Amino acid sequence: MLPMKIRIAQNAGFCYGVRRAIKIADEALEKNKSIYSLGPIIHNPQVVSEYEKKGLKVVESIDEAKNAILIRSHGIPPQIYKLINKKKLECIDATCPFVKEAQDYAKQLYEEGYFVVIIGDKNHPEVQAHIAYANYQAQVINSKEEAKNIQAQKIGVVSQTTQSVDNFVSIVSELVKKAKEIRIFNTICDATEKRQESAKELAQISDIMIVIGGKNSANTRKLFEICLNFCKKVYYIETKEELKKEWFYNVKNVGITAGASTPSWLIDDVIQAIESIDNDIH
Amino acid sequence: MLPMKIRIAQNAGFCYGVRRAIKIADEALEKNKSIYSLGPIIHNPQVVSEYEKKGLKVVESIDEAKNAILIRSHGIPPQIYKLINKKKLECIDATCPFVKEAQDYAKQLYEEGYFVVIIGDKNHPEVQAHIAYANYQAQVINSKEEAKNIQAQKIGVVSQTTQSVDNFVSIVSELVKKAKEIRIFNTICDATEKRQESAKELAQISDIMIVIGGKNSANTRKLFEICLNFCKKVYYIETKEELKKEWFYNVKNVGITAGASTPSWLIDDVIQAIESIDNDIH
Repeated sequence: MLPMKIRIAQNAGFCYGVRRAIKIADEALEKNKSIYSLGPIIHNPQVVSEYEKKGLKVVESIDEAKNAILIRSHGIPPQIYKLINKKKLECIDATCPFVKEAQDYAKQLYEEGYFVVIIGDKNHPEVQAHIAYANYQAQVINSKEEAKNIQAQKIGVVSQTTQSVDNFVSIVSELVKKAKEIRIFNTICDATEKRQESAKELAQISDIMIVIGGKNSANTRKLFEICLNFCKKVYYIETKEELKKEWFYNVKNVGITAGASTPSWLIDDVIQAIESIDNDIH
Repeated sequence: MLPMKIRIAQNAGFCYGVRRAIKIADEALEKNKSIYSLGPIIHNPQVVSEYEKKGLKVVESIDEAKNAILIRSHGIPPQIYKLINKKKLECIDATCPFVKEAQDYAKQLYEEGYFVVIIGDKNHPEVQAHIAYANYQAQVINSKEEAKNIQAQKIGVVSQTTQSVDNFVSIVSELVKKAKEIRIFNTICDATEKRQESAKELAQISDIMIVIGGKNSANTRKLFEICLNFCKKVYYIETKEELKKEWFYNVKNVGITAGASTPSWLIDDVIQAIESIDNDIH
C-alpha cells in the first residue's frame, strides 16, 4: 500500500490577533518577569502553561492582579478598564484590533437606537465584552431558531469574530424578515473566513481530518463542526498524544487544520506523529 | 361528481396604495373632467379604459399634459416634479405612501455614502423613481446571481414594494457576504407579503390556481410565479374571457388570487364564470 498523503489546510493556526497578543506578552515579559493575565492568554492550554513558566500568571479577576495586567485578544468590558485604572495597574492591552472594531460597532448600534443582536456564543469572553459595549442591552443568538423569536423595528447586528460564515448568513436571512430596518456589521474576521474555507475544501478530499486546538477554543470547535459536514472521520485533538493508530487504517488522504490559537509547534508535533504512524502501519 | 370548491385567497386584489390612488383620481375627476395621467393609473388595462371614459387621459411625458397631472401610485423621479412645477401644472399626487418611504430610504442611503442596491425590476416605473432618488447611482438587481457581482464596503438596500419576500431574502443572504456593512430597509409592503403568503397557502391545497391581473402588473406576475411552485396548474388571466372550460376537467379545488391592481369587479366576474363552467361540466 502507498503511504498516506498528509495535507495541511492552506490557512491554519495562529491568526493575526493571536500572534500580536503573543508578541505583546513576549515584549512585556522581557521588561517585567511578573505579569497577570485576565483569563488565559489564548484558548490553548499548552501555550498557557508555557507562558506561566515565563511569568504570566492567569487570574480570574482584577482583584487578584498586581502591578501589570495583560488584556488578551478577546477584549474586556469597558467597566473593567475603569477598574484597572482605579487600581492603578499597568494595562498591557492585547485586544485584537478586529475584536475592538466589533466592540465599537456594538456601541454605535446601541447608541443609534438599534436593538442589538450579537451572533455568537453568549458564554465566550469576546461576546461578553460585546454585550457590555451595547450597554448590556444586547441579545445573543447562535442559531436560526433563536432568530425567529426576535422582533424589532430596527435591528443592529454584529458577530463574534470567529463565527462560521454559513451560520452567520443563515441567521441574518431569518432576521431580515423580522425588522423594517436591519443594519449588519459583518465582523467575522478575514482569517476566520479563510481558515473555515480552507478546512471545508480540505475535508472534501480527505479520508480523515485532524483538527488541532484547545478544547475551550470556540473557533477550533467551529472548524471541527464544519469538517464534520464534509468528511466521515473527523477528530478534535489538543496534542499528538491523543492520536490513535487505528484511525489511520485504510486511510490514504489525511487533512490537518488548526484553530487560531494553536501554535505551529503543536501542529508540527502532530504531523511528525502521523508520519511515524504511517511508517508503522503501511 | 361533486361540484368544484372555489376559494379566494384571503388577501387578494386592490392594496391600500391602489385604492388610495383610485380615490384621489375619483375626487379629482369630480372637480375636473380633463386630467392627464403620467402612465396608466394602475397596471390594469380594464381599469385604465374605464377611467379614460371618465376623463383621465394617459400620457407618456409631461409635455403632452395640460392643466392637471395625476401621479400614479408608483411615484416619479424628483426631476419630474420640477418639470411639473416649471410647466405650472396642478400636481395630483397619488404616489403610494409606502413607495414614498422607499424613495426616501434610497435617498438617505445614497446621501450617507452607501452603495445603493435596489432589489427589483429595473424597467418598472417604481424602481425607475427609486434609482433617481439615489441620484442615479444605484444598482438594480433581481436575483442571487446578480448579487454575486456586487462588491462594496458599505451596501445600502431597498426593495421594490412588490418584490417577493423569498427572493428578497435570498438576494440579501448573498449580499451579506459581500460587504463589511450592509444596511437593509425592507420596503416590501405588508399587503404584498400577505398577498403572497395567502397565494402560497391556497396554491398548496388547490388543483388549479387562477391568478387575475394585468399582464403588465409586476406584483401579479410575482403571484403567478409563487403559485407555480406550489400547484401544477396555474393560469394567469386578465379577464373571464380567457378562461377555458378544459382547464377544469377533473378539478375539485379551485384557488383564485389577484394582484394589487385588480379591481374586485374583475374578480367577481371570474368567479361567476367559473361557477357557470362548473355547472356546465359537472
